[in-house]
Amino acid sequence: MRTTFRHELDQLHEQLIGMLNLVEAAMGRATAALLDPDRALAEQVLAEDATIDALRAEIDERVLTVLATQQPVAADLRVLVAALRMSGDLERMGDLARHVAETALLRYPESVVPADLRSLVRRMSVVAQHLVSEVRDCVGYPGGRSGQLADRDDDRMDELQRQLYEAVLCGDRRAENTMDVTLVGRYYERYADHAVAVARQVDFLAGVGS
Amino acid sequence: MRTTFRHELDQLHEQLIGMLNLVEAAMGRATAALLDPDRALAEQVLAEDATIDALRAEIDERVLTVLATQQPVAADLRVLVAALRMSGDLERMGDLARHVAETALLRYPESVVPADLRSLVRRMSVVAQHLVSEVRDCVGYPGGRSGQLADRDDDRMDELQRQLYEAVLCGDRRAENTMDVTLVGRYYERYADHAVAVARQVDFLAGVGS
Repeated sequence: MRTTFRHELDQLHEQLIGMLNLVEAAMGRATAALLDPDRALAEQVLAEDATIDALRAEIDERVLTVLATQQPVAADLRVLVAALRMSGDLERMGDLARHVAETALLRYPESVVPADLRSLVRRMSVVAQHLVSEVRDCVGYPGGRSGQLADRDDDRMDELQRQLYEAVLCGDRRAENTMDVTLVGRYYERYADHAVAVARQVDFLAGVGS
Repeated sequence: MRTTFRHELDQLHEQLIGMLNLVEAAMGRATAALLDPDRALAEQVLAEDATIDALRAEIDERVLTVLATQQPVAADLRVLVAALRMSGDLERMGDLARHVAETALLRYPESVVPADLRSLVRRMSVVAQHLVSEVRDCVGYPGGRSGQLADRDDDRMDELQRQLYEAVLCGDRRAENTMDVTLVGRYYERYADHAVAVARQVDFLAGVGS
C-alpha cells in the first residue's frame, strides 16, 4: 500500500513539474510575441493551452483515484489536497499566458506595448520566469523555502506593476494603448500571484516529505 | 457513519451558502461605493473580506477532516472535492469585490467611473448579482442546471465588458479613467467567471444528491 502511494506521489510530482515547465514556456513565448509582434508564436501559445488544461485534469483525476483507493490520512491527505490546489493555480497561469498571447494578436502587426514601456514589461516577464524557476528548484527539497523567495519576487512584481502604471499615465498615449498595457500589467501580476500560491504548497509538500 | 457524513455535508452546504451570501453582499456594497463614492461603505467591504477568507479556511478544514475520518469513496469523495473547489472560487470572488472597493477609494471623493459609463458598470453588477442568486437557488436541488443558466449570464457579462471597453475608447478621457475603468471591467468579468465555476460544481453536487 505504502509503496503504491509513494509511486503515485512521484507520478504527481512529475506531472506538476511538467505543468510548471509548460506554463513557464507559455509565458516566455507570449512575452516574446507581445514585445516583438509574432503571430505564429502567439498562436502556438493559444494552441498549447489545451495541453496544460489536459494535464490539470489528469492530475486531479489521479488525486481522486489515490484518495479513493488508498484512503490516506493526516499528512498524506494534505499532500494530495496541496497537489489539487497547485494544479488549479498552474492551469490559471497557463490562462494568463494565453491572455498575453491574445493581447499580442490584438493590433498585429502593430505592437500593443509602446516602445518606452517595453523594458518594464520585459522586466515583469523576467521576474515571472524567475519565480517559476525558483518554485521548480524547491520542489522535492525537504524544508524548501520557496514561499519566502517567492514573496520577494512578488514584491518586485508589484513594484514593477506600479512603475508600469505610472509610466502609462505619464506619457501621451492612445486610449487603446493605455487599456492594453493596463491589462497586460494585470496579467503578469496575477501570474506571479498564482506562482506564489504554488510556492506555498511546495513548501507544504517539502515539509511533509522531510 | 453515514449519518455523520450527511450531517457534515449539510454543514458544508450551509457554509457554502454563507460564503455566497457574503460575496454577494460584498460586491453589492463595492458597486454602490464605486458608483456613488462612499468611503465608509468601501471600507466595510475591505474589512469584511477577512470573514470570507476565514469561512473558506473553515470549509477546507472541514473537508480535510471528513476525508480523514470518514474516508469516503466514489460520489461522496467527489462532493468533498467539489466543495473544496467552490470555496476557492468564492474566496476569489470576495477578493474581486475588495478590488472594486479599493478602486472606489482610489480617487475619492471623485468617482473613478465617468458619468456616461456608470449605467454599463451598473448593468455588469446586476448580471453579477443575478448569477450569484441563480447559483444559490440551485444549490441542493437535484438535477439543478445552474451551469447552463450561469453560461447565459456569463455571455451577457462578456458582451457588457465589450461594450464598456468600446465606450471607454470612444470618449475623450483622462488616462487614469481609462486605466481604472479597464480594471473595473476586468474585476466584474472575473467575478462572473468564478461564479460560473461555482455553478458547475453546484450542478455536480446536485447530480450526486439526486
